Amino acid sequence: MADLFDKCAASTERAAGMRATRSFPYGKPVEARDGTVVTVDGRRVIMAGSNDYLGLATDARVVAGAVAATEKYGASCTGAPIMTGTIALHRELEERLAAFLGREAAVVATTGFQTNLALATLLGRDDVVFADAANHASLVDAARLGFARHHRYRHGDTAHLERLLAGSDARGGGLIVTDGLFSMEGDVCDLPTLVDLAGRYHARLAVDCAHDIGLLGPGGRGVPAMFGLESRVDIVTGTFSKCLGSTGGFIAAERGVVDFFRHHARSIVFSAGLPPASTGAALAALDVMEAEPERRERAFALASRMRDGLRGLDLAVGGGDTPIVPVHVGDDFVCRRLWWELLGEGVFVNAVSSPGVPVGRELVRVCVTAGHSEAQVDRVVDAFARAAARVGLGAEAGAGAGAGAGVGTVAGER
Amino acid sequence: MADLFDKCAASTERAAGMRATRSFPYGKPVEARDGTVVTVDGRRVIMAGSNDYLGLATDARVVAGAVAATEKYGASCTGAPIMTGTIALHRELEERLAAFLGREAAVVATTGFQTNLALATLLGRDDVVFADAANHASLVDAARLGFARHHRYRHGDTAHLERLLAGSDARGGGLIVTDGLFSMEGDVCDLPTLVDLAGRYHARLAVDCAHDIGLLGPGGRGVPAMFGLESRVDIVTGTFSKCLGSTGGFIAAERGVVDFFRHHARSIVFSAGLPPASTGAALAALDVMEAEPERRERAFALASRMRDGLRGLDLAVGGGDTPIVPVHVGDDFVCRRLWWELLGEGVFVNAVSSPGVPVGRELVRVCVTAGHSEAQVDRVVDAFARAAARVGLGAEAGAGAGAGAGVGTVAGER
Repeated sequence: MADLFDKCAASTERAAGMRATRSFPYGKPVEARDGTVVTVDGRRVIMAGSNDYLGLATDARVVAGAVAATEKYGASCTGAPIMTGTIALHRELEERLAAFLGREAAVVATTGFQTNLALATLLGRDDVVFADAANHASLVDAARLGFARHHRYRHGDTAHLERLLAGSDARGGGLIVTDGLFSMEGDVCDLPTLVDLAGRYHARLAVDCAHDIGLLGPGGRGVPAMFGLESRVDIVTGTFSKCLGSTGGFIAAERGVVDFFRHHARSIVFSAGLPPASTGAALAALDVMEAEPERRERAFALASRMRDGLRGLDLAVGGGDTPIVPVHVGDDFVCRRLWWELLGEGVFVNAVSSPGVPVGRELVRVCVTAGHSEAQVDRVVDAFARAAARVGLGAEAGAGAGAGAGVGTVAGER
Repeated sequence: MADLFDKCAASTERAAGMRATRSFPYGKPVEARDGTVVTVDGRRVIMAGSNDYLGLATDARVVAGAVAATEKYGASCTGAPIMTGTIALHRELEERLAAFLGREAAVVATTGFQTNLALATLLGRDDVVFADAANHASLVDAARLGFARHHRYRHGDTAHLERLLAGSDARGGGLIVTDGLFSMEGDVCDLPTLVDLAGRYHARLAVDCAHDIGLLGPGGRGVPAMFGLESRVDIVTGTFSKCLGSTGGFIAAERGVVDFFRHHARSIVFSAGLPPASTGAALAALDVMEAEPERRERAFALASRMRDGLRGLDLAVGGGDTPIVPVHVGDDFVCRRLWWELLGEGVFVNAVSSPGVPVGRELVRVCVTAGHSEAQVDRVVDAFARAAARVGLGAEAGAGAGAGAGVGTVAGER
């Protein structure tokens, strides 16, 4: 046999190459965090790449929720939820989530990733799953772990989906699965058409609302509520690591389906229960989210300011009007260099390339949160002006390369 | 198409049947926790079913580690580790784990489940994986997510494994994967033979040390150290939700392999980073574990006392000499009834049936921890005497059914 580890060497070489060209954007450690300002390489920079849309991960009330739960239940459940790893706080959170979303029941999982993997449990050999090609990796893996046939339709292409539905001769059931708000490009699924197709072809519909719960729809109840179609979506999955400032996730649906996941989903049954700290934090964040709807509005207003600023630089800003502000670059190296230049300018964002987005769709993903100030947004735009020019993007390309502050300038202070 | 949700009804009915026969053992919420005593249904009972082998999940120092990290970094990383979700504390924990295990490097994942799923990344189309049939569910799912051919050898049957190795004509690499300490039955893999086979057939060897790190081997360095074969094991995976009183997991190996997982494993790349609380707790637990080796000895001594007591009742006690004390029942209903009777007697254990163990291997899993007292161990044995008799197991079967305290007696106080 050959050596299984041979395949690792290419990755090491690639990383070394990126480091040599000052374009390695992955896994930079945050040394300290002070709201939207983090310390990286000993410098204070603006965090503009988190998913903390409502600014709750460092909110004092959310931190207090995590601390109180840890003090009451300990640092870990140390057991699977169906064994000894369920705490009363899990049930409280499940009931709160079900009530919030107007669903019969909900079950929590230890990560959002494992929440979505649980969908595999529904997918038997006679079933068929129809998945948007841009779905989150965890939904792709759920479909692969399930035993059903797996059809992927082109991103957002409901005509393609309909052809697949019409051509299916599955003896079992069908599941259409989609992200609600797509996390990398910031676009929203065409829920009215999906609901219509699910109804006409007798398929069930699951929507992963990881990025939209807390942000979109009345009360922040997500994409299903945004379209007034909550009753037509059979399964909602979500996560705590975006708007709810915690970690973990949940499935909400009718009670029998939720209990089915609770007792049979391998990613729930065979994993230690959601840590007390994460549970307490998510509960506290739900309280804040319901009490302070203005956070949502603030995130959108700041995102609009960010978009206007970046468009003013002739950058290719995509997405809808959400706090996810993708700047399309379309080239892997330029994307990574732009990330590096932005960090030099005191702004920490995400460089997204394959498999996060398809090849050719490389982008720098900026995230605005309710915790940012207007001045911070303006500083991010200023940083883009200089950084983009240096990598040959936008209005200043080729002209203003030396005009701004040099690499190493700290622009991160509030 | 049929309805995808039809399959949920059978599960609901089964659960209702179990509830009607007072034998539903799943997901009982812990209302409060005070070391090894938890409150369930408003009553204080002995927790004898956790995986908190060293008693660290409620240790004041571990709780303080979780709290301090939450206050410094917030309640969540809200981003993937390769994006903005890495904190310096992750790197510190990774370096501590690598040093502790004598490995070049380690990478943390948000759950132990996702740690093992990461192994899928190594499994290309030309490769082949050989897995013990009793491996943890997360290893099974890793093999299913990988693209390699997947051979399962009968639990512990290294002759079967050798036949599979000898018969393989894979063009790529081979991976042998096994649990170190099997969590349900408490037995240890035959590492010397596995190492020998891996060497002779040029396969790599991965050992999931989830349940043995902290417990077995010199310094608690796990099954590889127990056999003095650390240098012959290529990949060690582990979790924080057992001995380390936290949640999450890690892979330790040579640096290039660790970096490969860090940058390519979907379960690491596409999941929010390990929560600050879990990271701080695991680091604090490592400190305690290294400073207080007597905790390990205490867990073993108490387990020995538990085994002697249960064997004195003529119960079928299995496993080795570890804190995992399986009581074989071999019947699903009796197993679940025994669980229920034990809870009535003030003892909270695990009822394990398929798919946790094969059909016919149903067992009640008792876990002893360093936090238990001798008196608690004796109370658990007393509870077994009465509960086992009532379900027709052990020495008192059919005779002593009414002799002990009745259902509802609280035996859980220290």
